[in-house]
Amino acid sequence: MRTIDWDDEKGVVKLIDQTLLPVTYTIVDCSHLDELIDAIKRLKVRGAPALGVAGAFGVVLACMHVHTETELDAEIERLIHARPTAINLSFGVERALQATIHGRTMHEKVRFALEEAKRIAEEDVLVNRKIGEYGSELLDDGDVVLTHCNAGRLACVDWGTALGVVRTAIEQGKRIEVIACETRPLNQGSRLTTWELLQDKIPVTLITDSMGAAVMRDGKVDMVLVGADRVVKEGIFNKIGTYMHAVVAKAHQIPFYVAAPLSSFDIKRSYKEVVIEERSPDELLFCGEKQIAPLDVKVYNPAFDFTPFELIDAVITEKGVVRPPDLNIHT
Amino acid sequence: MRTIDWDDEKGVVKLIDQTLLPVTYTIVDCSHLDELIDAIKRLKVRGAPALGVAGAFGVVLACMHVHTETELDAEIERLIHARPTAINLSFGVERALQATIHGRTMHEKVRFALEEAKRIAEEDVLVNRKIGEYGSELLDDGDVVLTHCNAGRLACVDWGTALGVVRTAIEQGKRIEVIACETRPLNQGSRLTTWELLQDKIPVTLITDSMGAAVMRDGKVDMVLVGADRVVKEGIFNKIGTYMHAVVAKAHQIPFYVAAPLSSFDIKRSYKEVVIEERSPDELLFCGEKQIAPLDVKVYNPAFDFTPFELIDAVITEKGVVRPPDLNIHT
Repeated sequence: MRTIDWDDEKGVVKLIDQTLLPVTYTIVDCSHLDELIDAIKRLKVRGAPALGVAGAFGVVLACMHVHTETELDAEIERLIHARPTAINLSFGVERALQATIHGRTMHEKVRFALEEAKRIAEEDVLVNRKIGEYGSELLDDGDVVLTHCNAGRLACVDWGTALGVVRTAIEQGKRIEVIACETRPLNQGSRLTTWELLQDKIPVTLITDSMGAAVMRDGKVDMVLVGADRVVKEGIFNKIGTYMHAVVAKAHQIPFYVAAPLSSFDIKRSYKEVVIEERSPDELLFCGEKQIAPLDVKVYNPAFDFTPFELIDAVITEKGVVRPPDLNIHT
Repeated sequence: MRTIDWDDEKGVVKLIDQTLLPVTYTIVDCSHLDELIDAIKRLKVRGAPALGVAGAFGVVLACMHVHTETELDAEIERLIHARPTAINLSFGVERALQATIHGRTMHEKVRFALEEAKRIAEEDVLVNRKIGEYGSELLDDGDVVLTHCNAGRLACVDWGTALGVVRTAIEQGKRIEVIACETRPLNQGSRLTTWELLQDKIPVTLITDSMGAAVMRDGKVDMVLVGADRVVKEGIFNKIGTYMHAVVAKAHQIPFYVAAPLSSFDIKRSYKEVVIEERSPDELLFCGEKQIAPLDVKVYNPAFDFTPFELIDAVITEKGVVRPPDLNIHT
């Protein structure tokens, strides 16, 4: 199934619980906004494009359970702040909200929001396919692509952004291999990227994040290809560690590409205005049940970092491949 | 107690089981070479200087349980190959073996080997103190030092190499803070470095390995300071991820220092001749009991990487601070 979808029979949002992968594949239903917000905060659903769709479906759930505009505003406020860094969440919320404006009753608002949310989900799949088409032109037969975190099917509704580019290239008959960095502290690389690539029988090798530089030095990497949580005036925000890979790729003259839909663009904003989410110290103190650090140690745990355009060779969008500093022209 | 020591009463090697830290502090006894080799392979004892002492004590245990020179040779061979990358292991073995030459009986050989092994252990503490003295000149009051893996007390007999430099600087009255990278996949940074620094009340902040670049960009790091498992003609071998930090430090004009005793020097050898130990895929598939990747994914898990001298500002030894390319002159 899709990463996130609407269940017409039950009238609920259904999503793959990504915290349980790769060990178990479980679909969870969210019938109330509280459940969806909890799923977003716990990263049961994550990835910028998927969060956009989650935001839109969240508006539907909100409209289903409130009686007044004031109540709705309060619910929307909670939803938007579930995670601060990816712009897509508020983008999806805004679009669905906009659609409700002409609804005269909450019942009508639900209907309009749901139509719009489904439209956003459909668009996301098409957008990823377009990103795949444009991006695959950058990949040659035999290329080895290093990626970080999960910018795949599980980060979107389907297909994926960075991994969608790999999928399209393979669909075109190119032989592509992926090196997946495990992506500490929550291991989206080892848990999700490897899982979804193995599902599609795409060759993948798992390494720690710290091995990226060594494999680049050994000539084992043809390009770095990642997603983005937000594209701003001077560069991109993406999973913590992305900046490290960009610096190291530049030092080894390896191209560094970002695949992101225009819904992740917030190009008028400066990186200085963006809040980088800091997550719980527990993510570094424990791995599952296992304690891996003293409980009284100070932890710094930003979920994202900023990579300036100087380190990025191209951003792949559904409208084409843009090479900084031309970015403003095309968007 | 010391990280590794000889128990005169029991006639055994005793060591802190580092695989159980920081949750439990347990001393294990090794009365047979098999137990010591197992402890080395499982990283109950690890760190280049500590491995040198372990090697020397290993010779004692070997001599205690063999009857012929041929048997001894076979045991020594097993010991030396317990781990391939750190030169200190074979260095310690060689020194203890050399001491046994004048022993006419195995009983005498045990005595001579033990005297030499204890001497190596004592020397290690003094050497680390000297490294601390020389290295602390590079640290200013208020400095924040980023380190990787554990080059501390637990990697040596006592005091530490990289962390020994920090300890000496603090002893001199300088205020120094440490940023410890967790050091995947075995988390020596989060489990050991933070633990031993907290024991000494030295301020430490834990981050993932992938955050190093982001904290450097944010101006939070004054220098990188690490240990080394082997120093060769063109650079150093150290825990996987060291090369990444060196590349990133250079890009941010942050000094990159290595603290290593001369017993880690193998300066006539080229990096091309050194075997980089590849460890079990399980280290990336599991964290404790928790499965964090599909069991059928291909894993690349080198334990060390190579950092060329071009990226190293100075190597701190017990004979002084040497700045590449002057390295050959001083050693």
